[in-house]
Amino acid sequence: MSNLENLLNDLVIANRILANEEVVDAYGHVSVRHPDRPDRFFLARSLAPEFITRDDIVEFTLDGNPVGKEKRAVYLERFIHGGIFEARPDVMAVVHAHAEDILSFGLTEGTPLRPVIHSGSFIGAKVPIWDIADKFGDTNLLVANVEQGQDLAKSLGSNNVALMRGHGFAAAARSLIEVVRMSVYLPRNARALWRARQLGGEIKYLSQGEIDARNRGYSPYSVETWRAWHYWANKAGVGKLVTRPDQGKAPAKKPAKEAAKKPAKRKSR
Amino acid sequence: MSNLENLLNDLVIANRILANEEVVDAYGHVSVRHPDRPDRFFLARSLAPEFITRDDIVEFTLDGNPVGKEKRAVYLERFIHGGIFEARPDVMAVVHAHAEDILSFGLTEGTPLRPVIHSGSFIGAKVPIWDIADKFGDTNLLVANVEQGQDLAKSLGSNNVALMRGHGFAAAARSLIEVVRMSVYLPRNARALWRARQLGGEIKYLSQGEIDARNRGYSPYSVETWRAWHYWANKAGVGKLVTRPDQGKAPAKKPAKEAAKKPAKRKSR
Amino acid sequence: MSNLENLLNDLVIANRILANEEVVDAYGHVSVRHPDRPDRFFLARSLAPEFITRDDIVEFTLDGNPVGKEKRAVYLERFIHGGIFEARPDVMAVVHAHAEDILSFGLTEGTPLRPVIHSGSFIGAKVPIWDIADKFGDTNLLVANVEQGQDLAKSLGSNNVALMRGHGFAAAARSLIEVVRMSVYLPRNARALWRARQLGGEIKYLSQGEIDARNRGYSPYSVETWRAWHYWANKAGVGKLVTRPDQGKAPAKKPAKEAAKKPAKRKSR
Amino acid sequence: MSNLENLLNDLVIANRILANEEVVDAYGHVSVRHPDRPDRFFLARSLAPEFITRDDIVEFTLDGNPVGKEKRAVYLERFIHGGIFEARPDVMAVVHAHAEDILSFGLTEGTPLRPVIHSGSFIGAKVPIWDIADKFGDTNLLVANVEQGQDLAKSLGSNNVALMRGHGFAAAARSLIEVVRMSVYLPRNARALWRARQLGGEIKYLSQGEIDARNRGYSPYSVETWRAWHYWANKAGVGKLVTRPDQGKAPAKKPAKEAAKKPAKRKSR
Repeated sequence: MSNLENLLNDLVIANRILANEEVVDAYGHVSVRHPDRPDRFFLARSLAPEFITRDDIVEFTLDGNPVGKEKRAVYLERFIHGGIFEARPDVMAVVHAHAEDILSFGLTEGTPLRPVIHSGSFIGAKVPIWDIADKFGDTNLLVANVEQGQDLAKSLGSNNVALMRGHGFAAAARSLIEVVRMSVYLPRNARALWRARQLGGEIKYLSQGEIDARNRGYSPYSVETWRAWHYWANKAGVGKLVTRPDQGKAPAKKPAKEAAKKPAKRKSR
Repeated sequence: MSNLENLLNDLVIANRILANEEVVDAYGHVSVRHPDRPDRFFLARSLAPEFITRDDIVEFTLDGNPVGKEKRAVYLERFIHGGIFEARPDVMAVVHAHAEDILSFGLTEGTPLRPVIHSGSFIGAKVPIWDIADKFGDTNLLVANVEQGQDLAKSLGSNNVALMRGHGFAAAARSLIEVVRMSVYLPRNARALWRARQLGGEIKYLSQGEIDARNRGYSPYSVETWRAWHYWANKAGVGKLVTRPDQGKAPAKKPAKEAAKKPAKRKSR
Repeated sequence: MSNLENLLNDLVIANRILANEEVVDAYGHVSVRHPDRPDRFFLARSLAPEFITRDDIVEFTLDGNPVGKEKRAVYLERFIHGGIFEARPDVMAVVHAHAEDILSFGLTEGTPLRPVIHSGSFIGAKVPIWDIADKFGDTNLLVANVEQGQDLAKSLGSNNVALMRGHGFAAAARSLIEVVRMSVYLPRNARALWRARQLGGEIKYLSQGEIDARNRGYSPYSVETWRAWHYWANKAGVGKLVTRPDQGKAPAKKPAKEAAKKPAKRKSR
Repeated sequence: MSNLENLLNDLVIANRILANEEVVDAYGHVSVRHPDRPDRFFLARSLAPEFITRDDIVEFTLDGNPVGKEKRAVYLERFIHGGIFEARPDVMAVVHAHAEDILSFGLTEGTPLRPVIHSGSFIGAKVPIWDIADKFGDTNLLVANVEQGQDLAKSLGSNNVALMRGHGFAAAARSLIEVVRMSVYLPRNARALWRARQLGGEIKYLSQGEIDARNRGYSPYSVETWRAWHYWANKAGVGKLVTRPDQGKAPAKKPAKEAAKKPAKRKSR
């Protein structure tokens, strides 16, 4: 497969993983920036992520218009993706979802959502809460135009995740694999913090140094990261689709196969 | 299919979705008003919703009597449906269920159940708690006659949902698709509010303006609403049954197919 | 089938339902009193309830000894059953289990477990907590002899359910169908109460009059009760085993079939 | 099978059970000490436990180096196992995992994790919290070298379980069956304690005498312990792999079969 086809194949896998891990249901979506055209991104047409295949992927400009003729319905909230890709050249992939267990953190400032577990470190030290009402007053809470997408991106700033009050979250990352990982662990981190608060006592959050240390060590194709990606893909029934740009298809259910090809340097975890 | 057959087919789908989404179990039921006879409604015979097929649907008058001979057992609590259809000409569909996560909100007034997430907006700004004991004293808590059904409807008033103390809830809406949607998101909204309360701080509820804005935008056949209906139907194993009055059968697992038939106007979300 | 065979067949169904509803796992058991020999009861040999078939059922005397030769391992805690059957002539069936969501109510007296939802009414107004340490000091917490079983029965008194501190619960009822129903709804009632407490405000429990009203209306073969039994059996994969003494086999997945045989009087719920 | 092959076969089963019981996901691992070489242990190569087969097992020295040529990726955190096996000659098996429901107890000292239910007794009276930052400052929280493994083992001391702040836990036991059991019940004990705390009132923990009594009664091949092991293995789809050193293969789904071979002495529970 070409790099582009590989990327779109990964976008299909990302949709299926997010559905299977219950980050998205009928709603929620994941996008990836065009590798050769930074002013474009790929996102599925309006369809539940669980059902998405390669044919459902549509190319968009940053203002949310499909490139070329597209007669099928598209997501209203595509402006979330365009807004973030426009404001953040470093961002290659975006997720928007309503994952239930993070919703409560967007409803009150009583307990700010911050990383407390190592797998939650990638959400970053600060998770701003964007309230669409602050600028747009009474709406249906959906990000329905370029201006609203840009305002959300502004609130996200240089952070990785923004909670959307009464709605869900938007996550931005350097790769599809990272944004999926972040979206899967965000609710887990939220639950751990929510329970810890009920246990009383002072909560130990990850330190900035710990967040930085984990961030430095991150690589989308490290054995550690790859293992989760392949594990989730197999659980979601799309293990066969998994490929590595550097190695082509990996056999379903043999996530660590690639390691055998690096005898010299032992990758681990 | 005729419009009536379409509607009864949707009623079967509604039963299966509510069962699969764990809104109902062995108990709980959903009804729809007769499209041509406002003084009649359709409800299944006494059977767990998960097992219901077209043959199990029975036609009732508003006082809860089956139309024509019906030798099979029927739901005792059919009076909930009759009472609401009688009091609310605007209501076309009713759900009664015991969904676990809403029960606690009917046991105390410590935290009133109100919409906090956008998908919960359809429950409406006010969710009254009906206590059967207020008027009927010590009962088995079941709505077992016309008078009790009417009293529940009176407590519901012009709202969309009423909690039934120590029992469950009753939801009323303009369409089957809306009442199912409302019933699926009611527990989710309850969980988000329940968790938010434990996080401390002041909770931001949806404003009346936001509730109104979402309500104005609602349409049972909008791409957004339809996507969830078809998604839930496929998850429940009845995707094949899904049809649109305006388009006939939609292929299982291709929820957004219908959009392709509207090239002129792009529906979205 | 003879009445006895019918009863033992129901005991197999009860085991499977309790396993499928996660009331029991590798541990926990359900027994039924011998219909013709009040001084005997039936309980499975030592086996996870999920795997139990007719051949695994063993007959015991009230002191916990198998009747006749039994070379297979039996449950250590059979004394729970013997103790209760001995002390309570009115009891026909007993369940002991570790259902997770009731455990916390046995660890503190901060919130006594009482019925708050209609389906929880059968646990009765009072649920005593039996602490094996009160009489027997430091043990492994298991009810391992006649004396301990009798002490538990004494703590149960005339109630339907006793919590066992740090261990689980024991439930006693007039029929297998009722004790299974009680055991399935006990954790649900516990969860509703647990959540309600977190919502603040004063909790409305079922009144004694409501508990009595529900109790008076109870019948193991009422359409209402039967519907749940058949529903649970089908979910547990043993729908085919379901029979009614008055009607013989009921077809799998057609729980309300029996109603068709009572045209005269319409049973309902 | 030889004793060694039996042990490695059990190690595969242990991996599958921990995955199916959601103690591990893409991450987490279980090891067993070499029966004839106390300075060696067995652990899988870097692979999600759900996928592990006999061929994936690797032999390690206590300093975390594979014995013989191993070109495949191995777990970074193998040092957890080496460190504990080195410090604790009595320990034959170790688990490291991120089981979600125990994480919160590692984030605060507000409610120390202690045994409250009988099945949780094996975690021991004291569960220390190890904070990698205390000695190593800002890290990625992973136990990535011998020194960190030794420091964790030092914090574990003579206890059975240590929580790892912001990361997970490490459990050590006398046998594979015991360490799996401990790891499955650790989260359940945590949930029971977490909920009890919300119910208010004083919590009754297991007494030291009760913990000791249960510990004295423990045997990996007791009917009680074996029943859970076989039950979990069947649920995880590897029931066919289950064998007993003293009896050879046990038939899938007939966990208590072995009991029939001990007519003389009736084992029970």
